[in-house]
Amino acid sequence: MKTLVKNGMIVSPEDTYEADVLIEDGVIECIGKNLEAKFGDADKVIDAKGKYVLPGGIDVHTHMDIDVGIARAVDDFYTGTVAAACGGTTTIVDHMGFGPAGCPLHHQLDVYHGLADDKAVIDYGFHGVVQHVDESILNELETMMDDGVQSTKVYMTYGYKIDDDGILEVLKKMKELHGITAFHCENHYVVEHLKKEYGDAGKTAPIYHAKSRPNLAEAEAVRRVLYLAKLAGDAPVYIVHLSCKESLEAVEEARRNGQKNIFVETCTQYLTLTEDRYKDPDGLKYIMSPPLRTQQDLDALWKGLEAGEIQIVATDHCPFNYAKEKQDGKDDFRKCPNGAPGVEERMILLFSEGVMKNKISINKLVEVACTNPAKVYGMYPKKGIIEPGADGDLVIIDADAKQTLTHEMMHGAVDYTSYEGTDLHGKIDLVMQRGNIIAENNEFKGNRGDGKYLYRKPFLGDL
Amino acid sequence: MKTLVKNGMIVSPEDTYEADVLIEDGVIECIGKNLEAKFGDADKVIDAKGKYVLPGGIDVHTHMDIDVGIARAVDDFYTGTVAAACGGTTTIVDHMGFGPAGCPLHHQLDVYHGLADDKAVIDYGFHGVVQHVDESILNELETMMDDGVQSTKVYMTYGYKIDDDGILEVLKKMKELHGITAFHCENHYVVEHLKKEYGDAGKTAPIYHAKSRPNLAEAEAVRRVLYLAKLAGDAPVYIVHLSCKESLEAVEEARRNGQKNIFVETCTQYLTLTEDRYKDPDGLKYIMSPPLRTQQDLDALWKGLEAGEIQIVATDHCPFNYAKEKQDGKDDFRKCPNGAPGVEERMILLFSEGVMKNKISINKLVEVACTNPAKVYGMYPKKGIIEPGADGDLVIIDADAKQTLTHEMMHGAVDYTSYEGTDLHGKIDLVMQRGNIIAENNEFKGNRGDGKYLYRKPFLGDL
Amino acid sequence: MKTLVKNGMIVSPEDTYEADVLIEDGVIECIGKNLEAKFGDADKVIDAKGKYVLPGGIDVHTHMDIDVGIARAVDDFYTGTVAAACGGTTTIVDHMGFGPAGCPLHHQLDVYHGLADDKAVIDYGFHGVVQHVDESILNELETMMDDGVQSTKVYMTYGYKIDDDGILEVLKKMKELHGITAFHCENHYVVEHLKKEYGDAGKTAPIYHAKSRPNLAEAEAVRRVLYLAKLAGDAPVYIVHLSCKESLEAVEEARRNGQKNIFVETCTQYLTLTEDRYKDPDGLKYIMSPPLRTQQDLDALWKGLEAGEIQIVATDHCPFNYAKEKQDGKDDFRKCPNGAPGVEERMILLFSEGVMKNKISINKLVEVACTNPAKVYGMYPKKGIIEPGADGDLVIIDADAKQTLTHEMMHGAVDYTSYEGTDLHGKIDLVMQRGNIIAENNEFKGNRGDGKYLYRKPFLGDL
Amino acid sequence: MKTLVKNGMIVSPEDTYEADVLIEDGVIECIGKNLEAKFGDADKVIDAKGKYVLPGGIDVHTHMDIDVGIARAVDDFYTGTVAAACGGTTTIVDHMGFGPAGCPLHHQLDVYHGLADDKAVIDYGFHGVVQHVDESILNELETMMDDGVQSTKVYMTYGYKIDDDGILEVLKKMKELHGITAFHCENHYVVEHLKKEYGDAGKTAPIYHAKSRPNLAEAEAVRRVLYLAKLAGDAPVYIVHLSCKESLEAVEEARRNGQKNIFVETCTQYLTLTEDRYKDPDGLKYIMSPPLRTQQDLDALWKGLEAGEIQIVATDHCPFNYAKEKQDGKDDFRKCPNGAPGVEERMILLFSEGVMKNKISINKLVEVACTNPAKVYGMYPKKGIIEPGADGDLVIIDADAKQTLTHEMMHGAVDYTSYEGTDLHGKIDLVMQRGNIIAENNEFKGNRGDGKYLYRKPFLGDL
Repeated sequence: MKTLVKNGMIVSPEDTYEADVLIEDGVIECIGKNLEAKFGDADKVIDAKGKYVLPGGIDVHTHMDIDVGIARAVDDFYTGTVAAACGGTTTIVDHMGFGPAGCPLHHQLDVYHGLADDKAVIDYGFHGVVQHVDESILNELETMMDDGVQSTKVYMTYGYKIDDDGILEVLKKMKELHGITAFHCENHYVVEHLKKEYGDAGKTAPIYHAKSRPNLAEAEAVRRVLYLAKLAGDAPVYIVHLSCKESLEAVEEARRNGQKNIFVETCTQYLTLTEDRYKDPDGLKYIMSPPLRTQQDLDALWKGLEAGEIQIVATDHCPFNYAKEKQDGKDDFRKCPNGAPGVEERMILLFSEGVMKNKISINKLVEVACTNPAKVYGMYPKKGIIEPGADGDLVIIDADAKQTLTHEMMHGAVDYTSYEGTDLHGKIDLVMQRGNIIAENNEFKGNRGDGKYLYRKPFLGDL
Repeated sequence: MKTLVKNGMIVSPEDTYEADVLIEDGVIECIGKNLEAKFGDADKVIDAKGKYVLPGGIDVHTHMDIDVGIARAVDDFYTGTVAAACGGTTTIVDHMGFGPAGCPLHHQLDVYHGLADDKAVIDYGFHGVVQHVDESILNELETMMDDGVQSTKVYMTYGYKIDDDGILEVLKKMKELHGITAFHCENHYVVEHLKKEYGDAGKTAPIYHAKSRPNLAEAEAVRRVLYLAKLAGDAPVYIVHLSCKESLEAVEEARRNGQKNIFVETCTQYLTLTEDRYKDPDGLKYIMSPPLRTQQDLDALWKGLEAGEIQIVATDHCPFNYAKEKQDGKDDFRKCPNGAPGVEERMILLFSEGVMKNKISINKLVEVACTNPAKVYGMYPKKGIIEPGADGDLVIIDADAKQTLTHEMMHGAVDYTSYEGTDLHGKIDLVMQRGNIIAENNEFKGNRGDGKYLYRKPFLGDL
Repeated sequence: MKTLVKNGMIVSPEDTYEADVLIEDGVIECIGKNLEAKFGDADKVIDAKGKYVLPGGIDVHTHMDIDVGIARAVDDFYTGTVAAACGGTTTIVDHMGFGPAGCPLHHQLDVYHGLADDKAVIDYGFHGVVQHVDESILNELETMMDDGVQSTKVYMTYGYKIDDDGILEVLKKMKELHGITAFHCENHYVVEHLKKEYGDAGKTAPIYHAKSRPNLAEAEAVRRVLYLAKLAGDAPVYIVHLSCKESLEAVEEARRNGQKNIFVETCTQYLTLTEDRYKDPDGLKYIMSPPLRTQQDLDALWKGLEAGEIQIVATDHCPFNYAKEKQDGKDDFRKCPNGAPGVEERMILLFSEGVMKNKISINKLVEVACTNPAKVYGMYPKKGIIEPGADGDLVIIDADAKQTLTHEMMHGAVDYTSYEGTDLHGKIDLVMQRGNIIAENNEFKGNRGDGKYLYRKPFLGDL
Repeated sequence: MKTLVKNGMIVSPEDTYEADVLIEDGVIECIGKNLEAKFGDADKVIDAKGKYVLPGGIDVHTHMDIDVGIARAVDDFYTGTVAAACGGTTTIVDHMGFGPAGCPLHHQLDVYHGLADDKAVIDYGFHGVVQHVDESILNELETMMDDGVQSTKVYMTYGYKIDDDGILEVLKKMKELHGITAFHCENHYVVEHLKKEYGDAGKTAPIYHAKSRPNLAEAEAVRRVLYLAKLAGDAPVYIVHLSCKESLEAVEEARRNGQKNIFVETCTQYLTLTEDRYKDPDGLKYIMSPPLRTQQDLDALWKGLEAGEIQIVATDHCPFNYAKEKQDGKDDFRKCPNGAPGVEERMILLFSEGVMKNKISINKLVEVACTNPAKVYGMYPKKGIIEPGADGDLVIIDADAKQTLTHEMMHGAVDYTSYEGTDLHGKIDLVMQRGNIIAENNEFKGNRGDGKYLYRKPFLGDL
């Protein structure tokens, strides 16, 4: 089976150039000029003249079908990955939810294979999650690596928060294993103190969600994790959903002081939405942690992306219906399940809000949404790049098309989009995974269960 | 009762100038030229020609008679203050030890008045200590202020460590009361993790005391406290015994970012001794927390003093006999009581190692050992300065004298000095409190119980 | 002759305390409590109850009677020092103007003694000025020192700008002599380029004066001088009239990198007026170099004062009549003589705009307007402090009085004040030099020629 | 004409991957797997199994055949480009020398076409050079762009140094034209002052060459140029041969402050040799400007390369025979012609000293020695990358080979190499330009005059 994408503008982190791409049996075989003439007919020929051809998007922060205790995310691995596919994302690495207290790491891995294996329509991996730290868990980190789980998440807040000694132990072990430790950074005590303070004062509207999780509560935790990683010998650290200026400054300072192996993710929403949303009548839609911030933070994040201080843009996709689950918080923000959809909107928003508004180049988009995620999370160069030997995962974007983003055009199960009414410059024409078209003209063309589990490899170096 | 000190070089933080000082009924009445000629005879005339006249030293970090659980400090308020007096220190503010779990703040205040009131030979105050945080404790902070306890200490490690939410609550309350919150900054979890790691590996010699409390464990805690203070509206923060470069950098960065009300103390030992001491046969003598650091840290601290980034030099005087209590740690550093003597050595070491070696000016010495301690801790201008209206607390130093520091010349109860054999340039000739000579030529001349308890006032501004 | 100032609040850089001051034969003899009772009657007793008593102000940047080629400053050493005296300034150090090309340094010193010696009503010194650099000039720097001229100015722009090699030579020589080199920092080529560019484009209104001398033109020159001083072995450098944020950042960075002996002056106008004034109909009044800047710069300068990054506030007093000399620039800012009055307004503006608006403490006012000028320029402790042995130069300020600053209340020769209509909190009640009242209730009480020339001493250390 | 390079490890700034490269008529047509099987026979097949395949090196700082007044560089465009070719460099951009005073820019362009057109064996471009600034020169910058000269150099020292106003004018004009202004940054006055000072003191040995051009003389000029570029609206600035830590810090600070369009070059010698060489008996060999620096500077430069703060490594190749021209300096360093060879050694030294010693990755080598030079200087993507459409310029490196660098293996005209005796890990096996082998096994295989002049394009964006 040969597929030829011809005449497109191929985009890498480094460059944009016109060439043809030949995919055979799901793998990119050849990139060149006039390949049609050279090889004779392909089984399928797609003319991408005048369009951008990007590597398939990779979203390394999703929560499909997650049970957060007070609610369950409404996208399962089918609807969630259909949404991803239609949005130009051909790979996800999902953050698994918590299991029963004291369970081994593999417990959730088994659960998640059960949730995903016959449903996912795109390729997928899982991040582990540490709920407690002991000898047995530390040993299990190694067998998780063997099972393709190269990364593990640690929460510094919430019910299963890990104290600093546990963090140190995980960091040291993961460094030894060449794995990545991902951190949800918020100072638990500060957040709980403020939630109580606001709650006690009857300040329970959505805006107090933001006020109870201030920038400094995040920045403190970021700074602390960086110190711990340094103590662990510059152990690799990955900050998930960094959302504010002060956190970024903490990262920049650590790097200036010579600390290595720091990786930073932000999410689409932190680049495009401000905390003013909480004052809207439907403010509950935006309840997520960390909360939306101010324009000053947005500006700092775009600048950080451009300067290379932030390496990855993901989504933290974790959808709850506004009409249902979200309403639990209507009298008290503390009862609202945290999370919002986003896996489908990411690529086009980065293109329209980022590239077309001159905040980042299209090469930078590819770097932060495709290449870096693959590199950090052990999927490169199979994923994240258009080059011979890589999987034939492609996204074709028409920069000239204009449209308005609405919930109707979305494919997931949730009942709203956070970006309703956004004017978009650009449109995703076609999405291909391993040479197969899985979405075209905003219509899903793939098959339930066609996604493959990714055995992710150890992290062996710099970006 | 009139005492005249004539012809001395009076030292203030600002200036050094020749003048006479007249003290009446314990208070400085007049500073001027030829006062003898103007006033007729004083009851006592001291000729300080060619010598420095400094305000009495103030040591705001001592632990007289403290019970640390595994041992009790060997200086009580008599021997400890006699040592202080002979060393040129006329005021201490003592950090009270822990009381029974759950006790109110006044419990220890009562205990300490009992320990000190009839014994102290110099003026004294107490810092409170928070062992747990609840409504009742927060309210009691106010009555403690009324009782002259303007400052309270929070430990971030040890048995009564306070979590970050408690810290926030104390900071907010103390800010409201115009009080100072003092912090012992070390990351508890990091220290415990490392102590266990080294202990499990059989690494129990004194040097592993230092290795289990690395610079970054301190710097992390400093940084965290600064974030919390900023969240509390730039609440006043006082870092006790800051010992390393990285901690100082954290402070400097916070100040550069505009944070106010940060005060920093270091101690004599962190300016003069390095961790190499732990490798000496008598390494146990130096087991204290934070531990001694490296020459690079010493250099940074001297520079920080000179630049005004460190405001105060104290001692953390907490003596245990080397022959007895310290020997508990001979097989395992973790069993050695933490602490060392120093209240008597501080002033002359700052003079000899600091002023005479051109690291700081004599005016800076006065600033950090006399004036700033008085200002931060609500005793100014009664204490800490030579000016009309201030207490007649004076120290006369002969810069030309030379001597060698030995344990024999010390006046406290402990069986060693950490500075044995140090060559000293300069000598304390005479020490006066409220116009009375309490030490002369290294001989104590005061009286048991002559010290007065200091009702310290709210903190109302900058240094 | 004994004068007693009793019951005032004496202000030093360090402290504010109530005491009496006794002055005998022009010199402060004694500071203390109840001096009247102790000494019997003084010849003159002034009750300063409830008022501040400051050291006499020192303005180290004036240009009395200066000939700038296209005009001559309208205050001579009589009218200018009368204005100073009435404004609470009891000492000036005047920057001498240029002499004929190639003249020796003493040429101008002789000229200036001729201009000042029988006219000045307050004490005065002179800064030298280097117009060219050669062996003979370098040698003459030493004899100038002998004649009391401890400081020399170098212009980096204007007709007698000195190139970087000359700057290096002067810095090295002055360092050897323990003298201070003062710099007017603006990049000559940038300013000339922009003046031409704006002029050629017909942009000749006063606002283009500001635009042709941008912040970066100053900051570049500041940075350059700091590099040269470092190359000269941390030779003492004094930046006159630093006016903007970027220049201050350059200074701060150099200090952070360890460079010593950097001193910074700003002027009243750069703390209180913005470039918006150039758009007023009387914009010519404010044509001076550097020009007025923006609010952001003002904020940075106040912060720099408070943080100790700026050591001195002076005025660059150089008055031209608005009705006459300034009108030369009415069609082209480039023809307007540069300079404005300010020697009389400085102290009360610092008090009203600085102290009463909580930007600086009154102690900081004394530090930057009295003590530091005396220290840097070799007049301390004779000047700049209230202490036994110092000259009896005092200023008594009534903080409760309110008034509006108008030209009518000024005493100089010029026809306007830059601060017309400013509401003032505070009033200068009385000014005393060497024990003699020279101004009272805004009336001059001194005598022509009573000012003494100050032989200023070598600079031997830090502030 | 088809050439196939098969099985090599292709290196881009982003990635290293195994693939075949097909070149047709000098241009890369296709990159892929098993191309031989797909296309049938090529005219020439090279098996690069186990070897690295890099884009041809680009050296953007050479001085072939330059007349520096006191001497003429001994490599002409034939011998110099033969050396380059054998060293893996397939493109140079030569900095033209000065013409007669007052000459137009094209004068030298004509001269240089005469020197190079029939001799160069690899592709080449020229940088213009500004000797004076006036209306006519500024206009001519545009026609130079039309003639392929997209970049112009300004010297801040030497006989034709340009003052800051001229620099501003050039920067503004070049920005308008989308050209790059390159700067030799040294403070002329500082260097001349020190040369005289050392010379007058009889300090004329080679080490005084280094001492007379201290780090700060360079850093000051770098800082100044950055200010001027900012004043010109972030005009593109290219710092040639940045050699020291302080200069790099100036660049980093400007970037932190948000300044764009700053590009930095260092040279092989500043990464590998220290000023100790000047104390060797053959110290004259290393007389170049800026001079060699210290190990601390080397470390900073490697770090700057890795961190992306330095974008390009070139050579400043400017050879004079040690036995002849260099001997002019044997009694006085000031008479020695400045310059040293290096065009042939660059690629293999970066590989052996950089990549094999883990200072930079091989991808970084390609970025700084191939891709970035092409991007900054308007030759991308024709040069600097292996991708369809690019010129078939390739270098094949055998990482396993070991050799010792000696003058015998060099191909240029000069009588020494600065790197005599260096142990090399790695060897350049083969060099290809536009599909033709021009060097193999250290033997030149190309033809005189085969190099083509490169019309370089405007600079339109970021790297």
